[in-house]
Amino acid sequence: MSTQWLNNEAATLNQQVKQQALSRQAELTKPPGSLGQLESLAVQLAAMQGKIKPEINNIHISVFAADHGIAANKNISAFPQAVTAEMVRNFSRHGAAINVIARQLGATLEVINLGTVNNLEPLPSVLEQHIAAGTEDFSKQPAMTEEQLEAALNAGKQSVIRAKRANLFIGGEMGIGNTSSASAIACALLKLPANELVGPGTGLDESGVNHKIDFINQALKLHHHANSPLEILRCFGGFEIAALVSSYLYSAQSGKPVLIDGFISSVAALVAIKLCPSARNWFFYAHASAEPGHLHIMQALKASPLLNMGMRLGEASGAALVVPILQMACALHNEMATFSEAGVSNKDD
Amino acid sequence: MSTQWLNNEAATLNQQVKQQALSRQAELTKPPGSLGQLESLAVQLAAMQGKIKPEINNIHISVFAADHGIAANKNISAFPQAVTAEMVRNFSRHGAAINVIARQLGATLEVINLGTVNNLEPLPSVLEQHIAAGTEDFSKQPAMTEEQLEAALNAGKQSVIRAKRANLFIGGEMGIGNTSSASAIACALLKLPANELVGPGTGLDESGVNHKIDFINQALKLHHHANSPLEILRCFGGFEIAALVSSYLYSAQSGKPVLIDGFISSVAALVAIKLCPSARNWFFYAHASAEPGHLHIMQALKASPLLNMGMRLGEASGAALVVPILQMACALHNEMATFSEAGVSNKDD
Repeated sequence: MSTQWLNNEAATLNQQVKQQALSRQAELTKPPGSLGQLESLAVQLAAMQGKIKPEINNIHISVFAADHGIAANKNISAFPQAVTAEMVRNFSRHGAAINVIARQLGATLEVINLGTVNNLEPLPSVLEQHIAAGTEDFSKQPAMTEEQLEAALNAGKQSVIRAKRANLFIGGEMGIGNTSSASAIACALLKLPANELVGPGTGLDESGVNHKIDFINQALKLHHHANSPLEILRCFGGFEIAALVSSYLYSAQSGKPVLIDGFISSVAALVAIKLCPSARNWFFYAHASAEPGHLHIMQALKASPLLNMGMRLGEASGAALVVPILQMACALHNEMATFSEAGVSNKDD
Repeated sequence: MSTQWLNNEAATLNQQVKQQALSRQAELTKPPGSLGQLESLAVQLAAMQGKIKPEINNIHISVFAADHGIAANKNISAFPQAVTAEMVRNFSRHGAAINVIARQLGATLEVINLGTVNNLEPLPSVLEQHIAAGTEDFSKQPAMTEEQLEAALNAGKQSVIRAKRANLFIGGEMGIGNTSSASAIACALLKLPANELVGPGTGLDESGVNHKIDFINQALKLHHHANSPLEILRCFGGFEIAALVSSYLYSAQSGKPVLIDGFISSVAALVAIKLCPSARNWFFYAHASAEPGHLHIMQALKASPLLNMGMRLGEASGAALVVPILQMACALHNEMATFSEAGVSNKDD
């Protein structure tokens, strides 16, 4: 399989529909601009969907799970590596946060296991696309081989193909150690030292964070020859981050809006945009992660997230929380009366 | 009717249930704290409802409409005064923003007309509780008589009595000129000059804002003897703001959580807390209004709003937008698996 498709242009937005949606906004019975970002969200969605009255009523959530070789090192994560597989089982039994939110939204949720260290029995609603028992330890060697990277990228693309009827794509991740992996990728892409980006992940204390900074700085030295976005992704992993990158890109290329979750997902979005700059037109950034490095990633992406609830769970949970806001933006845009329909005097009357 | 009930203590929170809800949060399959504010929202709701598993499934929205004498002055509002009555008709025909959002939420929405300048034909789903054809012009005399203030306060209380089965109360307002009225109340309560609080409302330009500042500063001088919260409310109006104050208070006294909307609603909450400090335990602040003075009100209330979407419409629209977030907080708290149920290793294992 080739990876050239990753550089294909994203679908184009429908500028004519965008203008029509803007005109509609100006006619609704409210002072212009008074619905704030809800107005621009509806107009953006109209341009994406090519419909003056856009809809978000078929939501596809793919959560990619995989383990990280680095997690076997001491003090890289607050949780033991066994948790990745245990959480995959929890997803399968509908007990995790994203299960609860997906049920509330009526969204389709699929979990793709790309490679946990611990083997799992066959589980309902979990797709097994095993690449390896986790990535290699990136403090010693590249996290993935080229074949493994391609397999992970293919898995992301396949998830969007399965989501073909959806009008919103959300990707999520689960993998003990993946905050370190994402931080290393972001440092390499943005040429920043680790102390600018590294934070506590799921719960390290201050000395743990300092240790993680040293650990990542050493790995950045080891892989200093990695210069292209794909090579950086291959060196630092993980399978689930690579799958997010390609799912975001294929979604943008297929003309499907993407709602990006928190820190790890935003790093995947950054890789995606480095590979295909026009993909950015299809991305909404859901929330400001409590992970301190997220702010840097948002600045690099010139993005401002919609919510700031202090969340840092992953699993697509922050993104999914924003879905009702997008739906409300559409409903207001589509269903409010216009000044002339309602016989209400406009500002300029 | 007496207004003494306004000073009654708010209901007490159930501290035992709060502790149980906190314990439950610590057992859910996620790193502690990783759901950010969603965790504290669920715990607060549990303490309010006296239920370890709180619910938001019966939402009552009361929108109070009334006109303001000051709006007859030039350059106080960007919209003509006729719009208040026209918008009441629009509410009745389900064409306004709050109608759309209430429908999305499955919430009960009632509109109470406390006194528009223009008479309206009988309208479905609008309660006519006419006090007068708008308040008096507060730049010349007190906005209300004592009897009118009592009638408005009573209307707010009655709305909460009608909402008795609801587990969340939301108040909203519609009234051309009421950003000025609310700004004047806040200036008088906080002893601030108008330039610290006054903003564009629904759409004034810079010279309009400067004119409004002078106008309000003069009115503050005229009513400088008004020192108690109720006397300030009577002098600056309006009927709908007084109704919000009493609805918030009676809701807090009845043990019903309140979701506060934007600028005008937050000023009403400030008056409510001056009358009954313990009411603050029952208030959630939905969103940061685009009206610049809102930040001052939030600081005075020691509150931080949940959303910041740049909204400034009123009608309870910003508050209603937050309902799915509260519902999601409850669902996550109530339905996620615990570590022991899911067989997932905890941080301390």
